[in-house]
Amino acid sequence: MNMKKLLIIGGVAGGASAAARARRLDENAEIILFERGPDISFANCGLPYHIGGTIADREKLLVTTPQMMTSKFNIDVRTLSEVVSIDREKKEIAVKNLKTGEEYTEAYDALVLSPGAAPIRPPIPGIDNPNVLTLRNLEDMDLIIQSLANKKSAAVIGGGYIGLEMAEALREIKMDTTLIELAPQVMGPADPEMASVLHQELRLFGVNLKLETSVTAFEEAGDGVDLILSDGERLHVDLAILAIGVKPEATLAVDAGLELGTTGGIKVNDHMLTSDPAIYAVGDAVEVTDFTTGQPALIPLAGPANRQGRIAADNIFGGDSSYKNTQGTAICKVFNLAIGMTGLSEKMAKRQNISYEKVYVHPASHASYYPGSHPISLKLLFDPASGKVLGAQAVGADGVDKRIDVLAVAIRAGLTVYDLEEMELTYAPPYGSAKDAVNYAGFVASNVLRGDAKLCHVEDVCNPTENQMVVDVRNPEEVEGGTVPGAKNIPLGQLRGKLDELSKDREYLILCQVGLRGYLACRIMTQNGFKCRNLTGGYKTYSMTTA
Amino acid sequence: MNMKKLLIIGGVAGGASAAARARRLDENAEIILFERGPDISFANCGLPYHIGGTIADREKLLVTTPQMMTSKFNIDVRTLSEVVSIDREKKEIAVKNLKTGEEYTEAYDALVLSPGAAPIRPPIPGIDNPNVLTLRNLEDMDLIIQSLANKKSAAVIGGGYIGLEMAEALREIKMDTTLIELAPQVMGPADPEMASVLHQELRLFGVNLKLETSVTAFEEAGDGVDLILSDGERLHVDLAILAIGVKPEATLAVDAGLELGTTGGIKVNDHMLTSDPAIYAVGDAVEVTDFTTGQPALIPLAGPANRQGRIAADNIFGGDSSYKNTQGTAICKVFNLAIGMTGLSEKMAKRQNISYEKVYVHPASHASYYPGSHPISLKLLFDPASGKVLGAQAVGADGVDKRIDVLAVAIRAGLTVYDLEEMELTYAPPYGSAKDAVNYAGFVASNVLRGDAKLCHVEDVCNPTENQMVVDVRNPEEVEGGTVPGAKNIPLGQLRGKLDELSKDREYLILCQVGLRGYLACRIMTQNGFKCRNLTGGYKTYSMTTA
Ligand SMILES: Cc1cc2nc3c(=O)[nH]c(=O)nc-3n(C[C@H](O)[C@H](O)[C@H](O)COP(=O)(O)OP(=O)(O)OC[C@H]3O[C@@H](n4cnc5c(N)ncnc54)[C@H](O)[C@@H]3O)c2cc1C
Ligand SMILES: Cc1cc2nc3c(=O)[nH]c(=O)nc-3n(C[C@H](O)[C@H](O)[C@H](O)COP(=O)(O)OP(=O)(O)OC[C@H]3O[C@@H](n4cnc5c(N)ncnc54)[C@H](O)[C@@H]3O)c2cc1C
Ligand SMILES: CC(C)(COP(=O)(O)OP(=O)(O)OC[C@H]1O[C@@H](n2cnc3c(N)ncnc32)[C@H](O)[C@@H]1OP(=O)(O)O)[C@@H](O)C(=O)NCCC(=O)NCCS
Ligand SMILES: CC(C)(COP(=O)(O)OP(=O)(O)OC[C@H]1O[C@@H](n2cnc3c(N)ncnc32)[C@H](O)[C@@H]1OP(=O)(O)O)[C@@H](O)C(=O)NCCC(=O)NCCS
Repeated sequence: MNMKKLLIIGGVAGGASAAARARRLDENAEIILFERGPDISFANCGLPYHIGGTIADREKLLVTTPQMMTSKFNIDVRTLSEVVSIDREKKEIAVKNLKTGEEYTEAYDALVLSPGAAPIRPPIPGIDNPNVLTLRNLEDMDLIIQSLANKKSAAVIGGGYIGLEMAEALREIKMDTTLIELAPQVMGPADPEMASVLHQELRLFGVNLKLETSVTAFEEAGDGVDLILSDGERLHVDLAILAIGVKPEATLAVDAGLELGTTGGIKVNDHMLTSDPAIYAVGDAVEVTDFTTGQPALIPLAGPANRQGRIAADNIFGGDSSYKNTQGTAICKVFNLAIGMTGLSEKMAKRQNISYEKVYVHPASHASYYPGSHPISLKLLFDPASGKVLGAQAVGADGVDKRIDVLAVAIRAGLTVYDLEEMELTYAPPYGSAKDAVNYAGFVASNVLRGDAKLCHVEDVCNPTENQMVVDVRNPEEVEGGTVPGAKNIPLGQLRGKLDELSKDREYLILCQVGLRGYLACRIMTQNGFKCRNLTGGYKTYSMTTA
Repeated sequence: MNMKKLLIIGGVAGGASAAARARRLDENAEIILFERGPDISFANCGLPYHIGGTIADREKLLVTTPQMMTSKFNIDVRTLSEVVSIDREKKEIAVKNLKTGEEYTEAYDALVLSPGAAPIRPPIPGIDNPNVLTLRNLEDMDLIIQSLANKKSAAVIGGGYIGLEMAEALREIKMDTTLIELAPQVMGPADPEMASVLHQELRLFGVNLKLETSVTAFEEAGDGVDLILSDGERLHVDLAILAIGVKPEATLAVDAGLELGTTGGIKVNDHMLTSDPAIYAVGDAVEVTDFTTGQPALIPLAGPANRQGRIAADNIFGGDSSYKNTQGTAICKVFNLAIGMTGLSEKMAKRQNISYEKVYVHPASHASYYPGSHPISLKLLFDPASGKVLGAQAVGADGVDKRIDVLAVAIRAGLTVYDLEEMELTYAPPYGSAKDAVNYAGFVASNVLRGDAKLCHVEDVCNPTENQMVVDVRNPEEVEGGTVPGAKNIPLGQLRGKLDELSKDREYLILCQVGLRGYLACRIMTQNGFKCRNLTGGYKTYSMTTA
């Protein structure tokens, strides 16, 4: 490896990381970074927060400048330079200088593609209206900010994480904000009952949330734009932001005859090598393998892009680095809440026919007697045979990131729910509990596997058979606030005295607020010879599911 | 297993947990919980925060009451009942009713000891002064609060986590506060350079910190007490709080002839069984095995106590549960900072002659462009041969708990620093970074193991040999704020142009602010044939170490 001329297409997360790592690995290589836009290495993820004013200073979004890239890394950075084609035979690319319009070619020994993903713009009538914008880079952001000046109302189309962050940003600057989502839930990768908590939060903060709704047309309307919605409504807003997802920027790769995966992402092996032995690809543009399902997937996130850029550079300069697939660990702030997830979701498990069991717990983010503690709703999916942790989702106002991170490591390491019982995590009242949320999830799941506690789920208590009875073991005051239709109330404290009112022929479906007392009730009943199952997550999960 | 009469001594963390679990496992067992004090199941860990006023409501510290224990768990709770002896032959205990003074015996099939640990009170002259108090339970707390009313000054003796929390609490209520610690550092289990950050914080918040100082005598002095210090000072305070550590409450066990470990804790096997097949012991009173060193240890923490109580109950009721040793994962709040740790410390590694390498990183707790981000100083110890993660310590104002938890799982799971490079953790700007602090630690450590970056440590730059030269690659403005004595300044951006001023015969010890630019400099120099090593953690670690 004694040359080398390395060209990199795309100057942000994956591309800039590859460039920096490449220089660290080879002081003598010629490294040229091509970026279509005016900036490199900017904080895409910060864009909505500058629009909303949380990040006041635009400069802060420029993580690195071309000057710094040159002085630190001796890299030839060419902004406003679009790579328009790749000649694999000649091992050269054609570049268009967007300042001058000039085109030229540049030869390579190795090429890294990190062109990212582009916002999806479906062929809806009127979508090219100038008041329908998307958000991907600083220029898009500047245009949105400019378009919102002195305006009153905006719609966000799409409730993925960019849509959610944009809805929050718009409310921060006091816009009348409508969020339109085709699916019955926002935050697509999350399971519906977890996302439902976000629906409440969005409405609480004044977002007009329209689920199961699509835009069928955009129509010009004075200074703004009219959205024609699938429910017949005509919604007038000053600005619409389209955030229905992204698709890999694969045109260059396709034109060059590089292989794509079934998802439309560029196909790469675990060395991030494409079907051409001199071309690597990384980031949002590539198809990855999902860590838990083993299926091809598009998981456009910054962490993977950064790491893949580093791995590509390693392999180009004689290393042997493998990318070990993507778990889809992600988090999104929605006003005062965070939703986080890692590994397998229940919807994915169903889609892929993966056998799983699930539990819910709702413990405090830290000792509840210390100020600032908030409940975390944590859902854990695990293999009912081996107990292996498959996936986790959590929503709450505090400590969601920590629990998902802990569980992300557990999943990576192949740990089981029995291991979660024993996790020894930091505890002092301001930070955690003697038994952490993760321990609780481990206890509850392990109890199921050991046969100490049989579970039922929301669908069971909603549709009891004739031979089943739903029993709510909370106190009457709690039950007054709402319970499962038809549930009989026997407070836990009275249960032992009322066992003779129960029948050994039926099965009891027990619920309480979060599942703990229901579990205690089940232990009492089971040991007294009654058949029963406990609603995991209790009435709280029931409410999330049926919301 | 068809009886059973289970007696439990000690009604708080380990004891109450064992009782509750026992009932869940056996609805018919007779379970009696004996507690010497008036309360059970209280939040020991919350006591300092009630003294400081952060937890305003005393009631909140009562996690469970005897009434709840009875109604939920049908447990016979006997407070103000001190167990005074154990007759192992007869399988019975003698109990003293502290209300009536009466003594009686109670037979058992199985006995659980969870008597906790008592504050150490060394035989210092005058230590029985009524103005020298300790803190273990609610009564102690009440007495401290009462003694502080209308008072002005207090001293805390001992800088472990209880001492630190007390010093903070006393400042919260505006006491003139002196913290006296015999060792050159507070927070004994932490390494000195990590603890030094706490010294600054304590002083910043007005604590008069006296390290390497001991109390040689207490003398009566009006309403208060005079402390005679090892440096000759006579310190007058209204109240002194003794927090120099705890020792296992092993008297009952000793008197009963149960085996103790070398540390003075009750000896138990991994089932929490003592040397008597009918007696289990858990919590602060027992000796555990340190997870990383394999050595016997006393690690008095609430999480282990709770889990051990659960495990003891499991084994008593026919289960087969093992305790898998204690990592010593811990955290402590010190004003605006947290210090956290898990696994092996450097001082322990040295003491036990365990071979290790260490790296320091100081990354941001979340994306630095998003408000509220603070640097975390993270130290990672790993096996230089296998790369296995051995221990971690962190200090900072935000996100310390999360990183230590993630690393605690990594250590449990036997992961290596290479695994840390690939950890896929939650990232959105309010919560993390595309490359998390844990990834950074992984990168830096892996680079060392791969031979891509040679490290040096603070002791090296403090004592360069004749053939070494210390080079600071920060910008001149930064160097003005302080550098390593004798360091030559070559800013990174100029390094490539100044290589001809350097000699290939010397070894260069490179430093920058946190280690990143030093690493870049080393990559440049190494590839150009120079010998060099990078100061891990940079000037920041140097400052922490030499503070
Ligand atoms: C608003 C927003 C918020 C986000 N928030 C988060 C978050 O909170 N957490 C998270 O993990 N991820 C987040 N992401 C996603 C994250 O930014 C991406 O996953 C990551 O940037 C992908 O890196 P990449 O290198 O593949 O692509 P990009 O970072 O998008 O870089 C690709 C670059 O290539 C350039 N390019 C494309 N084609 C060419 C060409 N032919 N010639 C020259 N240049 C070209 C583009 O102009 C672009 O600048 C967010 C993204 C956006 C837009
Ligand atoms: C001020 C303070 C702050 C703390 N903060 C933290 C923290 O932040 N994080 C953390 O992990 N840990 C913390 N701890 C430690 C934690 O509380 C203990 O590790 C845990 O309580 C140990 O549980 P245990 O059951 O072994 O003992 P304890 O909880 O102490 O319970 C033992 C009980 O046994 C009773 N007893 C003893 N002998 C007899 C007898 N002969 N007869 C009857 N009863 C008897 C005692 O009265 C006592 O109530 C803190 C402790 C204190 C005091
Ligand atoms: C700015 C950018 C070019 C930096 O790339 P980079 O140099 O690889 O990354 P960092 O500055 O984080 O430095 C990481 C390197 O420094 C090393 N390092 C970091 N801290 C160190 C320390 N304290 N001591 C020694 N080495 C250190 C790491 O090991 C790593 O080097 P390696 O890859 O050779 O192992 C790239 O991250 C980028 O473009 N980011 C912005 C775009 C983006 O990510 N957007 C999406 C998220 S908003
Ligand atoms: C209060 C105390 C007696 C409770 O003991 P406990 O009943 O074992 O503990 P919890 O209330 O946390 O409940 C845990 C049990 O409920 C189960 N559980 C918790 N949440 C559940 C849920 N949502 N669904 C089903 N089961 C659930 C757990 O599996 C566990 O049962 P298991 O051990 O049989 O598996 C004990 O923790 C205590 O005394 N604490 C205060 C003292 C203390 O710890 N001090 C030091 C720290 S300040």
